[in-house]
Amino acid sequence: MPAYNAFYAQSGGVTPVINASAAGVIQTAAQYPDHINKVYAGQDGILGALYEELIDTSLESPEDIEALKYTPSGAFGSCRYKLKSIDEHRSQYERLIEVFKAHDIRYFFYNGGGDSQDTSHKVSQLSEQMGYPITCVGVPKTIDNDLPFTDCSPGFGSVAKYVAVSILEASMDVASMSSTSTKVFVMEVMGRHAGWIAAASGLAADERGLGPDVILFPEVDFDKRAFLQKVDRIVKEKGQCSIVVSEGAKYPDGTFLADSGVKDAFGHAQLGGVAPVVTQLIKEELDLKCHWAVCDYLQRAARHIGSKTDMEQAYALGKAAVELAVNGTNAVMPTIVRTNDSPYEWTTGHAPLAEVANVEEKMPAHYISDDGLFITDACRTYLSPLIEGEDYPSYSNGLPNYVVLKKNKLEKKLAPFEE
Amino acid sequence: MPAYNAFYAQSGGVTPVINASAAGVIQTAAQYPDHINKVYAGQDGILGALYEELIDTSLESPEDIEALKYTPSGAFGSCRYKLKSIDEHRSQYERLIEVFKAHDIRYFFYNGGGDSQDTSHKVSQLSEQMGYPITCVGVPKTIDNDLPFTDCSPGFGSVAKYVAVSILEASMDVASMSSTSTKVFVMEVMGRHAGWIAAASGLAADERGLGPDVILFPEVDFDKRAFLQKVDRIVKEKGQCSIVVSEGAKYPDGTFLADSGVKDAFGHAQLGGVAPVVTQLIKEELDLKCHWAVCDYLQRAARHIGSKTDMEQAYALGKAAVELAVNGTNAVMPTIVRTNDSPYEWTTGHAPLAEVANVEEKMPAHYISDDGLFITDACRTYLSPLIEGEDYPSYSNGLPNYVVLKKNKLEKKLAPFEE
Repeated sequence: MPAYNAFYAQSGGVTPVINASAAGVIQTAAQYPDHINKVYAGQDGILGALYEELIDTSLESPEDIEALKYTPSGAFGSCRYKLKSIDEHRSQYERLIEVFKAHDIRYFFYNGGGDSQDTSHKVSQLSEQMGYPITCVGVPKTIDNDLPFTDCSPGFGSVAKYVAVSILEASMDVASMSSTSTKVFVMEVMGRHAGWIAAASGLAADERGLGPDVILFPEVDFDKRAFLQKVDRIVKEKGQCSIVVSEGAKYPDGTFLADSGVKDAFGHAQLGGVAPVVTQLIKEELDLKCHWAVCDYLQRAARHIGSKTDMEQAYALGKAAVELAVNGTNAVMPTIVRTNDSPYEWTTGHAPLAEVANVEEKMPAHYISDDGLFITDACRTYLSPLIEGEDYPSYSNGLPNYVVLKKNKLEKKLAPFEE
Repeated sequence: MPAYNAFYAQSGGVTPVINASAAGVIQTAAQYPDHINKVYAGQDGILGALYEELIDTSLESPEDIEALKYTPSGAFGSCRYKLKSIDEHRSQYERLIEVFKAHDIRYFFYNGGGDSQDTSHKVSQLSEQMGYPITCVGVPKTIDNDLPFTDCSPGFGSVAKYVAVSILEASMDVASMSSTSTKVFVMEVMGRHAGWIAAASGLAADERGLGPDVILFPEVDFDKRAFLQKVDRIVKEKGQCSIVVSEGAKYPDGTFLADSGVKDAFGHAQLGGVAPVVTQLIKEELDLKCHWAVCDYLQRAARHIGSKTDMEQAYALGKAAVELAVNGTNAVMPTIVRTNDSPYEWTTGHAPLAEVANVEEKMPAHYISDDGLFITDACRTYLSPLIEGEDYPSYSNGLPNYVVLKKNKLEKKLAPFEE
């Protein structure tokens, strides 16, 4: 059986550990020389395939590939780009086949979240619908933790650890100053549709009163009165209150809190930011001194405080993807299968791409407390192992040794792609 | 010579390493039993002395005192409270003497920034002006790095490391997504009057194009046109641009950018946040997709990424304060004296409190590039050693083992204080 080349690309929002999956794919592919010749990475996701911008990963040093395990962001570039269906946009698929043929590519690994697995699924149909022999395996990744079938999504555990550590630290800061200064601290985290990241902050709450006191989820309609009552009560009891709010927190009518009318001096709606909106509300209604933070990209790039569990799973799923492919399994995505909560034990499984694509796994109701403003013990049991373990990058001159690859491109063989 | 008790307290905004100074004071005091009996910590700074809220640190376990080196925030509580002068408010000083006498306190260690060293200075005058024999030594601390005489201020190095690591990571995120998504990232950091923290982000800039491209300092009047031109040029050259802005960035007329008219739906001025203002400007003028983050308390509580150099200096200054006091030196503050840039070598010295109090050390002009929008090599040389070294806390269940002390209070001997 002759060996063919593999295409690997990164798609959607990047994470602290998506490059660990890349390392898993590249290092594992090297163990199957009878099946896989070289791994070509797409520059900026699927665009790299369409535009024939292919990076020869065999020209990177083994040390640099190993360093991907400790490097956040997307080492090959990522993209937000969704293929239409084969019926709608046949020429795009013909182009993909043309590029794959030109570079002897018969394996396709696409590393992304729900939208990206939709792309993986469409590419996996090439063999059946257009007769091009390709084996396509998705590699899961999303900080939103909203992929179905898998116990969790690589990237989430590290973001979860970042937000839990950050709110733990900030809540201690507020507690030590509250007698004469700030009484309420509000931290905004990502999660437009699912509250997993906000929920993870709850892991920092302990019997000593540290961590967040209130969490606002996208899954729970914002009840202004109940929220303010809880904040007021906690400030009276503890002297201060720490709050974590999902960017996707919304009113019962579906309006995002972040969109609730903040205007600049010119009357233009202001860009994002639910934390200042919540802070303003508390200031006006409860007259308390507040501070707020917006984590934004810091949370999804924070490899310096990455979860060891998360990194290991990201790597394992890259590895599993290659193993599935060389065994001839098409149109699947490897998954994490939890076999025990404590100690956490897991293995890998797989799910059909057709069922993965475009499904959003939200927080189940029993993970949210009855008042809608915190997590339950069941949620803690689920989340806790995902942030376990530290896995620090090495440092020079006080900064992490994150790798930037050489990214040597293959010579193009085709005419430029015209959309 | 009989031994007396010592008062120690934390004042002003807390830092990732102020508790390391506390450990330095407490552990060193134990080495001078002929001079110092017990260390009583004030609950919430000087308020603890006024209200006779005194914590007996001898009742904490040695392990917990050692753990202070790895615990952010103010373990004994801090305060924002400035004593008036002895002439203006003699009764406050009489109360202090009353409390000190009641608890046999003749050493006073006050751990804070410029305002707090003003308090230290006033207390140091008690012996001369009111005849109470007290030895008063300030312990420097401020993330703002604006104390005079010392090479740097404990707390700053860790915040500097946090912002440099954070913008490094975020800039990599943006670089990997910019072909189809965010082009500009804006990160807001602390520093209302001095741009040291913003400057430290510049350490992440390297020959690979990572780190921040533009820095806005409070020391430089905001030039909208020059700023937008630079951002536009960088986006055209690199494909994306990362910006760090001090909360204190201001227009030539002295108005803070953060106060430049952002109103909520009700027409109220919105709480803080210069990052969204800068982002809005870029969006409107350059029509680029932007994201922004506000670090706020996360930066000054982030012990998880503390600088080893900073922690060692914070501890050394607590130790030096006690050594100065037992040698009978009153009314001083120990300082860091740099003896070599690379490798960084330092020792401790001291400065008179009378000259330290209320002086703000801003960024010197030669640390800021000619265009006013970045740091110079001289600045890098100064800043680089301050973020050197990692010094991680231990972790359990994925979270740092930060200590919360027992804080046993002394029995009160006096009538309640009435302001």
